[in-house]
Amino acid sequence: MVPRYARPDMTAIWSPENRFRIWFEIEAHATEALAELGTVPQSAAKALWDWWATKPVIDVDAIDAIEAVTKHDVIAFLTWVAENVGEEARFMHQGMTSSDVLDTCLAVQLAQAADILLADLDALLEAIKRRAYEHKLTPTIGRSHGIHAEPVTFGLKMAEAYAEFARCKARLVAARAEIATCAISGAVGTFANIDPRVEAHVAAKLGLAIEPVSTQVIPRDRHAMFFATLGVIASSIERLSVEVRHLQRTEVLEAEEYFSPGQKGSSAMPHKRNPVLTENLTGLARMVRSAAIPAMENVALWHERDISHSSVERFIGPDATITLDFALARLTGVVDKLLVYPERMQKNLDRMGGLVHSQRVLLALTQAGASREDSYALVQRNAMKVWESDGELSLLELLKGDTDVTARLSAEQLNALFDLDYHMKHVDTIFARVFGG
Amino acid sequence: MVPRYARPDMTAIWSPENRFRIWFEIEAHATEALAELGTVPQSAAKALWDWWATKPVIDVDAIDAIEAVTKHDVIAFLTWVAENVGEEARFMHQGMTSSDVLDTCLAVQLAQAADILLADLDALLEAIKRRAYEHKLTPTIGRSHGIHAEPVTFGLKMAEAYAEFARCKARLVAARAEIATCAISGAVGTFANIDPRVEAHVAAKLGLAIEPVSTQVIPRDRHAMFFATLGVIASSIERLSVEVRHLQRTEVLEAEEYFSPGQKGSSAMPHKRNPVLTENLTGLARMVRSAAIPAMENVALWHERDISHSSVERFIGPDATITLDFALARLTGVVDKLLVYPERMQKNLDRMGGLVHSQRVLLALTQAGASREDSYALVQRNAMKVWESDGELSLLELLKGDTDVTARLSAEQLNALFDLDYHMKHVDTIFARVFGG
Amino acid sequence: MVPRYARPDMTAIWSPENRFRIWFEIEAHATEALAELGTVPQSAAKALWDWWATKPVIDVDAIDAIEAVTKHDVIAFLTWVAENVGEEARFMHQGMTSSDVLDTCLAVQLAQAADILLADLDALLEAIKRRAYEHKLTPTIGRSHGIHAEPVTFGLKMAEAYAEFARCKARLVAARAEIATCAISGAVGTFANIDPRVEAHVAAKLGLAIEPVSTQVIPRDRHAMFFATLGVIASSIERLSVEVRHLQRTEVLEAEEYFSPGQKGSSAMPHKRNPVLTENLTGLARMVRSAAIPAMENVALWHERDISHSSVERFIGPDATITLDFALARLTGVVDKLLVYPERMQKNLDRMGGLVHSQRVLLALTQAGASREDSYALVQRNAMKVWESDGELSLLELLKGDTDVTARLSAEQLNALFDLDYHMKHVDTIFARVFGG
Amino acid sequence: MVPRYARPDMTAIWSPENRFRIWFEIEAHATEALAELGTVPQSAAKALWDWWATKPVIDVDAIDAIEAVTKHDVIAFLTWVAENVGEEARFMHQGMTSSDVLDTCLAVQLAQAADILLADLDALLEAIKRRAYEHKLTPTIGRSHGIHAEPVTFGLKMAEAYAEFARCKARLVAARAEIATCAISGAVGTFANIDPRVEAHVAAKLGLAIEPVSTQVIPRDRHAMFFATLGVIASSIERLSVEVRHLQRTEVLEAEEYFSPGQKGSSAMPHKRNPVLTENLTGLARMVRSAAIPAMENVALWHERDISHSSVERFIGPDATITLDFALARLTGVVDKLLVYPERMQKNLDRMGGLVHSQRVLLALTQAGASREDSYALVQRNAMKVWESDGELSLLELLKGDTDVTARLSAEQLNALFDLDYHMKHVDTIFARVFGG
Repeated sequence: MVPRYARPDMTAIWSPENRFRIWFEIEAHATEALAELGTVPQSAAKALWDWWATKPVIDVDAIDAIEAVTKHDVIAFLTWVAENVGEEARFMHQGMTSSDVLDTCLAVQLAQAADILLADLDALLEAIKRRAYEHKLTPTIGRSHGIHAEPVTFGLKMAEAYAEFARCKARLVAARAEIATCAISGAVGTFANIDPRVEAHVAAKLGLAIEPVSTQVIPRDRHAMFFATLGVIASSIERLSVEVRHLQRTEVLEAEEYFSPGQKGSSAMPHKRNPVLTENLTGLARMVRSAAIPAMENVALWHERDISHSSVERFIGPDATITLDFALARLTGVVDKLLVYPERMQKNLDRMGGLVHSQRVLLALTQAGASREDSYALVQRNAMKVWESDGELSLLELLKGDTDVTARLSAEQLNALFDLDYHMKHVDTIFARVFGG
Repeated sequence: MVPRYARPDMTAIWSPENRFRIWFEIEAHATEALAELGTVPQSAAKALWDWWATKPVIDVDAIDAIEAVTKHDVIAFLTWVAENVGEEARFMHQGMTSSDVLDTCLAVQLAQAADILLADLDALLEAIKRRAYEHKLTPTIGRSHGIHAEPVTFGLKMAEAYAEFARCKARLVAARAEIATCAISGAVGTFANIDPRVEAHVAAKLGLAIEPVSTQVIPRDRHAMFFATLGVIASSIERLSVEVRHLQRTEVLEAEEYFSPGQKGSSAMPHKRNPVLTENLTGLARMVRSAAIPAMENVALWHERDISHSSVERFIGPDATITLDFALARLTGVVDKLLVYPERMQKNLDRMGGLVHSQRVLLALTQAGASREDSYALVQRNAMKVWESDGELSLLELLKGDTDVTARLSAEQLNALFDLDYHMKHVDTIFARVFGG
Repeated sequence: MVPRYARPDMTAIWSPENRFRIWFEIEAHATEALAELGTVPQSAAKALWDWWATKPVIDVDAIDAIEAVTKHDVIAFLTWVAENVGEEARFMHQGMTSSDVLDTCLAVQLAQAADILLADLDALLEAIKRRAYEHKLTPTIGRSHGIHAEPVTFGLKMAEAYAEFARCKARLVAARAEIATCAISGAVGTFANIDPRVEAHVAAKLGLAIEPVSTQVIPRDRHAMFFATLGVIASSIERLSVEVRHLQRTEVLEAEEYFSPGQKGSSAMPHKRNPVLTENLTGLARMVRSAAIPAMENVALWHERDISHSSVERFIGPDATITLDFALARLTGVVDKLLVYPERMQKNLDRMGGLVHSQRVLLALTQAGASREDSYALVQRNAMKVWESDGELSLLELLKGDTDVTARLSAEQLNALFDLDYHMKHVDTIFARVFGG
Repeated sequence: MVPRYARPDMTAIWSPENRFRIWFEIEAHATEALAELGTVPQSAAKALWDWWATKPVIDVDAIDAIEAVTKHDVIAFLTWVAENVGEEARFMHQGMTSSDVLDTCLAVQLAQAADILLADLDALLEAIKRRAYEHKLTPTIGRSHGIHAEPVTFGLKMAEAYAEFARCKARLVAARAEIATCAISGAVGTFANIDPRVEAHVAAKLGLAIEPVSTQVIPRDRHAMFFATLGVIASSIERLSVEVRHLQRTEVLEAEEYFSPGQKGSSAMPHKRNPVLTENLTGLARMVRSAAIPAMENVALWHERDISHSSVERFIGPDATITLDFALARLTGVVDKLLVYPERMQKNLDRMGGLVHSQRVLLALTQAGASREDSYALVQRNAMKVWESDGELSLLELLKGDTDVTARLSAEQLNALFDLDYHMKHVDTIFARVFGG
């Protein structure tokens, strides 16, 4: 975790306090269930919850000090609770194994993290939607291969981003369901020493599904899917970030990251306004993505479990979620405050002398009876002149002067082929698809 | 694609013939829709389908020869079709762009591939289920950290694998839906030169959803999710393969890959029966997994599209699906014919002198009134003796001779704590969760 | 391996013929050494080499047919050789294990592949160097964050690429040394059944180092380093490719991939000249890079060896080397024939109204006695006006009209600060560092 | 960075204090050089060093507070220094750009980190060497595919590890040289505003090479190579860790991680001694390896630079080096204190009824005149009986009772073929290769 790329709510999920709090709840709910089943006294559960009701401060240092001796984190925690709750605490953790606590806790933490990320995505979607409608019909050049192709609108660019992040949200909802399971099944998952109803009780209390079959641990294919999904979301963040970076480059300058009056872009070049936020997001995307492979490598634990996954998760659990949360929030800010320059978009649209309309002319010639090959040749020979003039010549004018063209298309017809609105006639259709009726 | 890791049906999906066949269907369905809309003559669509009805051989070499000149694959294909169909073919591809054909074709191919993989998973699940029920109550030692823990059954190991691959199937169903979309939206996705109803028609005919908003290309977050999902499935293949490899090692030998009478394990050591299939699957899993990152790197195409994704997909499209198909089938064979040795499992279970029951003794002592710490110490001091004897001593006998223990637990009570059935009492519960009532 | 991204020489290295040829040489050299040691008759080695001298055709189908029965590739090969050579062949492979042949063969193949890649790098370096000197003093704008910064020369861009690929070459030389080792040490590497002098003899004949300690297999950290190095080289290919893609975008257009007269850029937009080669290289770089992780996962083989690495290497051995060879050659072509437009570079340089000189002005003001903060503010207030004018205003003129500036710098001094040559005064120094005296 | 996987010396390298200390040294050395060149007064450099000689506390909070306003880290630092040093400080950073400081600082940090890692490797190599000589002739079974193959010695296993980590050290030396360069070349690397002699002076003072050609930043292929190398080293750590994990598994138990008397293996199963350190190392290896791909993705910065690499490096710079340092130290401890059980190794060697000698018998039969196929069949039919007896039968006795065998080999000859020393005759050779004469 890099503090500058971390926000407090997500960071708090990975704090020792939150972890111990969840551990306690798992243990207390389990003791409650054990008491219901008559395995332990009702007074044991009561003692735990009574103490909890006093809102005790989690003394992380004290627990760490015990762990330094026992070299076992859950035993250290249980010892500390027992020191506070007293005699009744000995009924805690009956028939359970450490992983019952650790893995169910991780499930709660990842579900909490997913909830924040889902809220982040909602905020991002809202910002994108607003900008999409704001610029629904703002014409701008569409580019393939970085080369001018045909007109689109800036709103369509936003609509694409909206649809993409809406997919990301659906994926994250699915990924959250993957990891939100509770396993309290004992040392090798057989429930030998603990009744399955304890698991069911704890799961219900914590809002988790039960893990159908565990083997001391919750199977790690679930986590692999979760982190792979974060990697895909990060890649979509990269995509929109790269778009902004392109739009902000000096020669294009169709949009800019918001630039606060006091901000210095560079110690050396005061005129520079650099797309540093989206460049940063590009890097953060690489990091979130990099969690996918170790998460997949974690799946093949040996037999009923080994602990090789644990160190990986201590890194990627916090890192991937905290970084993605930060990145989504940063991207939301970028979108929300993005400076959009419609005049510049128009200027860029015009700079190619109308070449972007060549496709229409090609079609019109075909429909006017020319063969595909002839039409292509006719357009190409005029287009090449415009291209070589660096935008000085106009395709429309050249076509009007080409008798092979005018033999098939009148000047009026040619004028109509260069109309920008032609390209926007289905924007409504697309918006309806993306944003609904 | 490595031929020895490829099966014919999946390989055929990626053949030029299949690709051109799908291209034709996209073009012909589109022409049909254009004819309905009055944009092109009905005769054009009819001419295409009439020719198609003759089941023409796809002349890949001829198309390649044209491409060598035009340096453009779709134009080469269209030219070849026109050579065969004649004059009417000039109405094909009206208002479309190459990517409309290429991306929709890839969607069809990936959906076809997903269908094979889903069938593979069904076969694997069936084989696992059969072995699970066959060995539902075959006792075997559960191991954490490679160390004997507590008894499980071999059926439970299979049940875990079943649940894991059932999740993989659900993920693949979702991933298939991700990529099964049709985009026929023109050069930058605006439908400027083609009516959205053409897309809807082709999508319906091909069993695809429409792509809500495309930008010449179908957005690559879909494909990233698809290949990431294949990577997770591959990781689950690795897990089960590693389990078999462990079970087959000389000192364990609880199971073996089927060994045909004529097969030679090694040129030098004729007695060796090596788990080469599952070792191979471990390697194949690494390969399938390795497609995830380039697929994610493909997401951030520039502006409305660049073509950097294309070369990646020429590799990972065939490689990841063909390899995963092969791996799933190989794993199904391994599971189906796995030689399982229950006697050896029992022998291994017994070799630790009963240490695997120590957890039960610990709990019983606690329940008999000893503190957690005292119980732990009592069990540990006897367990250590057994451990150091390398299985010569019996924990049960030692406990019976430890007066601090017998002060709390009678010989009869101790005997009961070493009963294997105790660990199997919830196998039915778990099977019901995994395989249904 | 994707045929369209493969060249014949590199592909031939991975053909069965080449593999079997190397196998034969290993076996024959080993038999020769065994004969020297008196272990086998001299006639055995002679028989092998006599047959080899007849330049026998390698009958891959026949060997495959035998393997279909024996399910063991080396035994199949030995059987086929024995069928051809006769009785004396039974002395072949004495005391050797299959991996002695397979791993040493892979070493030879990878060394052959490295030699081709080194030649590729030489060709690329030569092309880059030529273009570097050609445009040593061609001014162009340097950009950080995609934003105009200060002038550089196109030759400097090439010099950077040269230095980078020169590093890549040095890395590849080291990586080649990593994998060019010979192991003929028997079933577990103890030389129990074969004298170490056999290994030494074969190594010397094949131009390999001996593997100091092997364990049936050559340790895979060597191969991991090799493929990781290819990944780094691929990343440098991506860098130069991305540079070209940027330079070719419509608004920049400072350079273009060579565009042959007959080439069609798009079926729909005849005027488009797309940087498809460098986009393709960007994708190919992702693929070569993706071999690094599975190669690293291959390192941790179990005990003295397992065979999980083998399937991985069947993919990445050919794929990474063939693709990188193709990519280096393609990049060499791109560099060699790159259309460079100095006038457009100058035009772009001029379009910012002189803002790129602001750093010099800042320094001059500081040296003329202004504080860093005051200097910064003075430059910034004028620069912002220029920036907002979209290049209409000139920074030089504005500064000349700012009395706070002219209080410190004369018009003459200001003029001098806008001289382009100022930025090129150390180009010779840099060229000397990169290309040598 | 995960604190539990971090050691103080390596962590300190990445502290703000160390970073600012290096920044100061870069700036002060540069000012010194500028003074030598007459660009700034000698008094400026003196003022800086005089202040530094007072060993001022680096007030990180104060610098952070300034950065919160300026949003620029280097300017914040320079401002803070100026506040402390006074008027003369305004000559600092003349003609430099932030990246000159940042990138050169990163070079120093990575070189410092590499030095610690090299020392770690030395310590590891020493520990391995000691154990190698201690167990040079301790016989143990060599295993391929997890199956007993032929005898090796535990010392040979260590020798292999030694050779592997010696290679890792050589790689790290090369990787250190890759990143230990100094760039002080200004905004786009042209030295327009700073003399190259400043760079040379600072480089010499800091023990770095000069960067031949930089573009505001040091090219990131260097860092990609560095982190890829760390990934390969991590993979070798994984290999040795997996070996220990295998050796410790219950059925094998030939070695164990040191188990301190007070340590609890599990809250539930007091007898368990789990290889948790090496499992942990397996996970840490995955993490270090995961830095390789983002480091390679960092190479293709846009034009002269973008800042996308920076966030990646804020993670992987500390994480990969700190984790690898911790892992190397942990592995050294594991090796150093590893409990090795030669008796158990012998027991395992014996458990296969002598099957491990089958290869020798095979060779002896061939040398005694049997054909390869006949020899194979003879050994195989006896070996299979032993195999199926689960170690009850003895291969030696069976062979003595097989008249087809005794027709070729006497009982005495057969006895000799089962001699363990036969396998150890070249251990000296291998040790000489690995550890030197």
